[in-house]
Amino acid sequence: LSTTARRRSWWGWGYEDAALPDHEVDDLGQWLATQFPGAQLSRTDPPSPDSLDLPQPRLAPPDSLAPIVSTEVADRARHASGCSFRDVVRALAGRVEHPPDLVVRPRDDREVSAVLEWCADVEAAVVPFGGGTSVVGGVEPDVGPHFRGAVSLDLQHLDGVLEVDELSQAARIQAGALGPTLEEQLGAHGLTLRHFPQSFECSTLGGWIATRAGGHFATGPTHIDDLVEAIRLVAPAGVLETRRLPGSGAGPSPDRLLLGSEGALGVVTEAWVRVRPRPTWRAGGAAHFVSFSDGVAAVRALSQSGLQPANCRLLDATEAIVNGVSDAVTLIVGFESADHPLDAWATRAVEVVRDHRGAPVGEWTGEASRAGASSSWRGSFLRAPYLRDALVRLGMVTETFETAVTWDRYDSLAGAVEAAVRAAMVDAGMEGGLLTCRFTHVYPDGPAPYFTVIAPAHRGGELDQWAQVKAAASEAILDHGGTITHHHAVGRDHRSWYDRQRPRLFGKALARVKATLDPAGICNPGVLMDPLPRPRV
Amino acid sequence: LSTTARRRSWWGWGYEDAALPDHEVDDLGQWLATQFPGAQLSRTDPPSPDSLDLPQPRLAPPDSLAPIVSTEVADRARHASGCSFRDVVRALAGRVEHPPDLVVRPRDDREVSAVLEWCADVEAAVVPFGGGTSVVGGVEPDVGPHFRGAVSLDLQHLDGVLEVDELSQAARIQAGALGPTLEEQLGAHGLTLRHFPQSFECSTLGGWIATRAGGHFATGPTHIDDLVEAIRLVAPAGVLETRRLPGSGAGPSPDRLLLGSEGALGVVTEAWVRVRPRPTWRAGGAAHFVSFSDGVAAVRALSQSGLQPANCRLLDATEAIVNGVSDAVTLIVGFESADHPLDAWATRAVEVVRDHRGAPVGEWTGEASRAGASSSWRGSFLRAPYLRDALVRLGMVTETFETAVTWDRYDSLAGAVEAAVRAAMVDAGMEGGLLTCRFTHVYPDGPAPYFTVIAPAHRGGELDQWAQVKAAASEAILDHGGTITHHHAVGRDHRSWYDRQRPRLFGKALARVKATLDPAGICNPGVLMDPLPRPRV
Repeated sequence: LSTTARRRSWWGWGYEDAALPDHEVDDLGQWLATQFPGAQLSRTDPPSPDSLDLPQPRLAPPDSLAPIVSTEVADRARHASGCSFRDVVRALAGRVEHPPDLVVRPRDDREVSAVLEWCADVEAAVVPFGGGTSVVGGVEPDVGPHFRGAVSLDLQHLDGVLEVDELSQAARIQAGALGPTLEEQLGAHGLTLRHFPQSFECSTLGGWIATRAGGHFATGPTHIDDLVEAIRLVAPAGVLETRRLPGSGAGPSPDRLLLGSEGALGVVTEAWVRVRPRPTWRAGGAAHFVSFSDGVAAVRALSQSGLQPANCRLLDATEAIVNGVSDAVTLIVGFESADHPLDAWATRAVEVVRDHRGAPVGEWTGEASRAGASSSWRGSFLRAPYLRDALVRLGMVTETFETAVTWDRYDSLAGAVEAAVRAAMVDAGMEGGLLTCRFTHVYPDGPAPYFTVIAPAHRGGELDQWAQVKAAASEAILDHGGTITHHHAVGRDHRSWYDRQRPRLFGKALARVKATLDPAGICNPGVLMDPLPRPRV
Repeated sequence: LSTTARRRSWWGWGYEDAALPDHEVDDLGQWLATQFPGAQLSRTDPPSPDSLDLPQPRLAPPDSLAPIVSTEVADRARHASGCSFRDVVRALAGRVEHPPDLVVRPRDDREVSAVLEWCADVEAAVVPFGGGTSVVGGVEPDVGPHFRGAVSLDLQHLDGVLEVDELSQAARIQAGALGPTLEEQLGAHGLTLRHFPQSFECSTLGGWIATRAGGHFATGPTHIDDLVEAIRLVAPAGVLETRRLPGSGAGPSPDRLLLGSEGALGVVTEAWVRVRPRPTWRAGGAAHFVSFSDGVAAVRALSQSGLQPANCRLLDATEAIVNGVSDAVTLIVGFESADHPLDAWATRAVEVVRDHRGAPVGEWTGEASRAGASSSWRGSFLRAPYLRDALVRLGMVTETFETAVTWDRYDSLAGAVEAAVRAAMVDAGMEGGLLTCRFTHVYPDGPAPYFTVIAPAHRGGELDQWAQVKAAASEAILDHGGTITHHHAVGRDHRSWYDRQRPRLFGKALARVKATLDPAGICNPGVLMDPLPRPRV
C-alpha cells in the first residue's frame, strides 16, 4: 500500500506508474476504431512539464515559510487543476490556465495558520489541496482578479493517524492522509474506515470531508458525513474544533456546516472518524434483469427492506459491458460484517430480487458468494479513471455526471436526462456515442444515478462538446428534482446550477458564515459562492 | 387517537383527563411516606386559571390578525412555559412569570408571515410553540427587556399530512401535527414515521425538528434529523424551502442548519419526512445482568455489531424497579421489520448478551418475543410524565437530564456525574433520594445515558434544590466529554453550558446566520444565543 515513493501524474489521474503504457493505449485505439468508424483516434502524448511556459510566481514568501514552499513547474502544474475530463484535456494540450504562484506544504496546524495569515496580509487566495482528484474545479486556483496571487495549500505532510480509540471504534486522523495511508495505519489495529470512493487511492480524508464524498456503503452511511465524529478546522479567524460526540441535540450541528464547505470556510486539518473492525463475514452476489426498470424496482425494494447491504449497485446493460461484468442489466449486492454470518440477509435479498423478475447468478451465501461479480466489478471501478485518461489521449470525450432524486421522480428525471443528453450529443457531433447509467448509492426514498458519456470528439473541440452535453444534463437534473451533485461536490463547475438549487436565504446565510470564518475572503474563492466583494488588485 | 376534543393541562403534562386523579395522588403519597420517612408529602392542587393575576397584554393586534389571536388567561398561562419540573413547580404555585401578551394561531404560511411582519413592526418577540413540551425553557417567552411584548405563535392549526409519496416512502406534513395526529393520517396509507419521543402524544413534528428530538429508534436513525428529507421555514427575511432529496453532496446541508435551530431562525411550517410501512415482524426480549457494567459492555457490543436493533435500552436496577420492569439491571432489545422475519438478528443478539454474562428472559424469537418487557416498559415510559406531575404535587423533586459521550469516556463521565449529583443532593438536603440511569440511544461510538433524580423537597425550596443538582450534573457532563443535551435541546436552561460546549467561531457564525434570517432578532430571543443587540424599549 505504500504510496509515498510513487510519483503522481501532473496531467492525469493518479500515479504515473499506473497509467496505461503507450502500447496499451494504441491497442485500445485500434479496438475503438472498430467501434467508432471514422473517429480521429490518434494518440496524444502529455507534454513534458519542462515545456510548460508558466508565468513567474507573483508572490515572494517570507523566510519563515520558505522551507515549505515549492515553485517547481511540475508542482505548480499539478496543483493547477483537479482530474476532470476538462482538466486532462487542457493539461494534454499544455494549457495550464490557473497555476498557483506557490505550492506550500505545511507540516502542522501552526504552519497552516501561518500560511493563512501571510496570505491575508499579502492579499493572496489560498486553495486547500488534498489529493487533487476534484472533478468539479474544486482545487483550480481560478480565483478571479481580486487577489495578488494564489497559493495551493497541499496537506500531504499531515497524513498520520494520531489516535485510535478502540473502545469507541474511532480514530483521530490528519486531513492529508490518503485512503491507503490511513487504511494501512488503521489496519495495524484491525480497524478500517471503509470509505472507498472511486478516488480512494489518491484522495484524502480532508478532501472527503470538504466535499461530502460518497463512499463504499451503498446504503446507510453513504457519505463521509455519517462517519465523522468531530472536525478541526483552521480558518483565518481562528481554530474551530468540534466536540467528539457519538450523537448530540445541542443546537444545529457544527460538523454539518463544515461538511461540504469545500475549503471556502478554512482548512480541515484533522477529524475524529468512526471506524470499525475489518469484515470477516460476507454474502451476496450478482443478479441479471431483462429490463432496467425491473432492476430499479428490485433496488427500490432492497433499499426499503431494512437489510442495508454494504453494496447495492445497479448497472445498465451498456455499463455492465463496458465494465466487463456481463452483457445484461446487472445488480451487485454485498453484505459484510465483522460480527455475524449473513445468510439470512442474503437469502432475503435473493427473494426480493426474484420478486422483481431478477435472476440471481450462482450462490449468494456460503464461500462461493465471496468472489464473483462484486470483486471483478470493483477492480474495474478503481481502474476506470486510468482508462479514462487513455481514452482522452485517443481523442474521446469521456466524462461522468451524477445526481440523486426521490423514487417518484426518478423515471421522469432519467427520461429527461437521457433525452437531453442524446439531443445534446447529436448537436455536438457526438452521435453514436455511449450514455450509460448505474446506481452508486440507494436510499429508502430514492437512488443516486451516475451517468457516463463516451464518444469520439472533434479534436480541439472536446471542451465545447462536453460543455454542451453537461449543460443539457444539468438543466434536466435541476428541472426534474435532482441535486446537481450527489457526491462529486460543487466546486467551480457546478456553481450556476448549485446557485439555483440552493435556497436563496441559505446562500445568504452561508456567505455570512464565510465572512465570519474568513473575513478577508481568501479561502478557495469561487467555490460554493461568489468571492466576497473586495477591491480589485 | 383523536386528540382534538381533549383539553391540555395549563399547568402540567399533557391532557387534563390523563392526569392522576387526586385520590391516586394521595395513594401515591401514602406509599412515598413509607419510602421517604419524614418527607413533607401533602398534596398541592393546581390553582384555577381564573385565579391567576396576569398582566394586561401590552400588544394590540391589527384587525387582520384578530381572528387568530387569543388573550384568554388560561391560554396565555399555558403558553408561558414548557413542561419541565421547574415549569410545573412554578405553575402549581401560581407563578406565571413570562406569559405571552398574545397567543396567535395562524392557519397557513401567509398568516405566519403576517405575524412575523407585524411583530417586527411593533418590536415584539415571537416564540414558536408546537406541543409546548419543552423541558429546557424553549417556549417560555422570557425574552429580556428589549421588546415591547411577546407573542406565542402556536402552530396547532397546521396539523395536516399534505402529501404522501408511497413510492419514495415520504410524506409532506405540517409542523403543528401532533404525533398521534400524523400517525393516524399516515396509518391510512399503511405508513408510519415511527418517531416516538416520550412526549409523542403532546409534541409536534415542527417541535421535533426545531429541537433535534430523539425518537423511537435506539440505533440508526435516532434523531429526527435522519428522517427529514426537506424543510420549509418561514423566517422574517422570507421563506427558506429546501429541495426534497434522498441524499446530496451539494455544499453544506441547509436542512442540518435548521435542525436544532429552536425557533431562533424562524418558524418551521412543514417538512418532507421519511416514513415506512408499519412493522409486521418483531423479535427480541429482555435480559438481566448482575452488574451495570456487564450490561454496558453488552450494549456496546450490540451497538457495534451492525444488527441495528430498533430498541436497545439498558436500565439500571433502580430504573427497572421504578418502571416496574424487574428488580435487576435490565436490557430491552427489539427488532422490527415490515420486510422479513428477524430470528437471525435476535439469535445473534442473544449470543452477544450471553457473551457478556447476561441472562435472556424467555424466548427472543417466535410469537413469544412480541410481548413481554418491551411493551410493559413502553406503557410506563409514556405514562411517566403524568406520574412526574403527581410527584411534584406531593412535594418531590423529580427531574431528568441526559447526555451522550464516547465509550472511552463513559465510565469516567458516569462516575463523575454520580459523585457530583450525590454530593449536590446532600448539599441541597436531598440525601436519601434516588438517582437512576438508563441508556435511551446507543451508537457504535458511545451511549446516550439518561438520568432521573427523585427526592423529597423542601417545600418552597424545590427550584433552588434542583438548580443546585442540575448545575453539578451539567458541570460534570461538560468536564467529562459529554454533550449538554442529546435530545432535550438547549432552550434557555442549558445556555451557559451550551455556550461552553459550542465552538466559539461556530457561535459567531450562527449569530450571523440569525441576523440574516431574522434581521430584527425577534425569533425566540434567548434560546441558543444571546438576543441580537438592540435598543432597550
